[in-house]
Amino acid sequence: MAKQDRAIRTRRTILEAAASVFEKQGYQAATITEILKTAGVTKGALYFHFQSKEDLAAGVLSEQEPGQGVPPQPTKLQELVDVGMLLAYRLRTDPLVRASVRLTLDHQAHGLDRRGPFLRWSEANQRFLDAAARQGELLPHVNPRATADLYVGAFAGLQMMSQTLSDYEDLAERLSVLQHHLMPSIAMPAVLASLDLAPDRADRIAETAAAS
Amino acid sequence: MAKQDRAIRTRRTILEAAASVFEKQGYQAATITEILKTAGVTKGALYFHFQSKEDLAAGVLSEQEPGQGVPPQPTKLQELVDVGMLLAYRLRTDPLVRASVRLTLDHQAHGLDRRGPFLRWSEANQRFLDAAARQGELLPHVNPRATADLYVGAFAGLQMMSQTLSDYEDLAERLSVLQHHLMPSIAMPAVLASLDLAPDRADRIAETAAAS
Repeated sequence: MAKQDRAIRTRRTILEAAASVFEKQGYQAATITEILKTAGVTKGALYFHFQSKEDLAAGVLSEQEPGQGVPPQPTKLQELVDVGMLLAYRLRTDPLVRASVRLTLDHQAHGLDRRGPFLRWSEANQRFLDAAARQGELLPHVNPRATADLYVGAFAGLQMMSQTLSDYEDLAERLSVLQHHLMPSIAMPAVLASLDLAPDRADRIAETAAAS
Repeated sequence: MAKQDRAIRTRRTILEAAASVFEKQGYQAATITEILKTAGVTKGALYFHFQSKEDLAAGVLSEQEPGQGVPPQPTKLQELVDVGMLLAYRLRTDPLVRASVRLTLDHQAHGLDRRGPFLRWSEANQRFLDAAARQGELLPHVNPRATADLYVGAFAGLQMMSQTLSDYEDLAERLSVLQHHLMPSIAMPAVLASLDLAPDRADRIAETAAAS
């Protein structure tokens, strides 16, 4: 294995350990010592990649960066749907993404700027909606900024409710209900009729994203 | 002051102290000793009202019981809107309600059944939507159960985003955006046109509720 590959794998191991300790103990109570023990790496290796607990948290938070690897679709609104569906899939299957979202919503995480993910998701959604507007996909009254924010807030709550009630099993179903309620208020009728909002879109889009 | 009034006030004092300690330290780290110190009551007084930390948490959680004191309106959908608006007002102004909602969303609160508030809110919303259906207010395809759940999840996330970005200052505005997006998908056109979904509905409905 090349040196660089090893470094990438070590970084990933450390991030996964940090994620698991943040999950178990909460950000506030977590310690670097505990993260070292869980990761099974040397102090030197950890500090080569991360300078502090805040830095580790920032690394975990960046694992939910918006819009990673969503395949292009005929409409921008379908891509907006797919970003949510793909995140639903990753929340169910990737512990690091899961930890990242929970960290964003951990109000005991003092000293950590938890506004970042809200703002970045909102900006990402707005880019999709602005592009949708340029392509004539949106009803004329839509305010992309307000709708983008609404998607972020609603998603944050639905994933939390889903996690509490079913450990994410029903998240794709809940997202589908959200889309069926929101899209008629923002999409032009012809676009609306073309959208795939089914819950199993999550698995299908994840397969396509993985294959590409 | 009658004996009973004093007991009610003491109970309230203890709950407010518990709420403030849960807020500051998180549920997991909070101790009865700290709550006693904050409340300034005797151990005997506390244990007369609450048997354990779990019991105190249950008391705080019950402070967001749905549908408290919303004045009757011409349509059930307006009442559904008003329940959300009133909760937005109370989140901004009542520390006990604020602590209750945060406790529901504190995933470090192991051993606490946090599903209760989600399920109770969902049932309450469903009662409004079932009544709305009986009065012919809903579009024919609406599934009251799915829509009720969606409102709970979306609200949970919007209040969290609002708390993170503006300490609840913009919550009524965010709720108004939610209603403007959801109501066209569920309300009959004549009902839709009659709804008051403005952000300042929150303050107005709180004044009416307080006066009644």
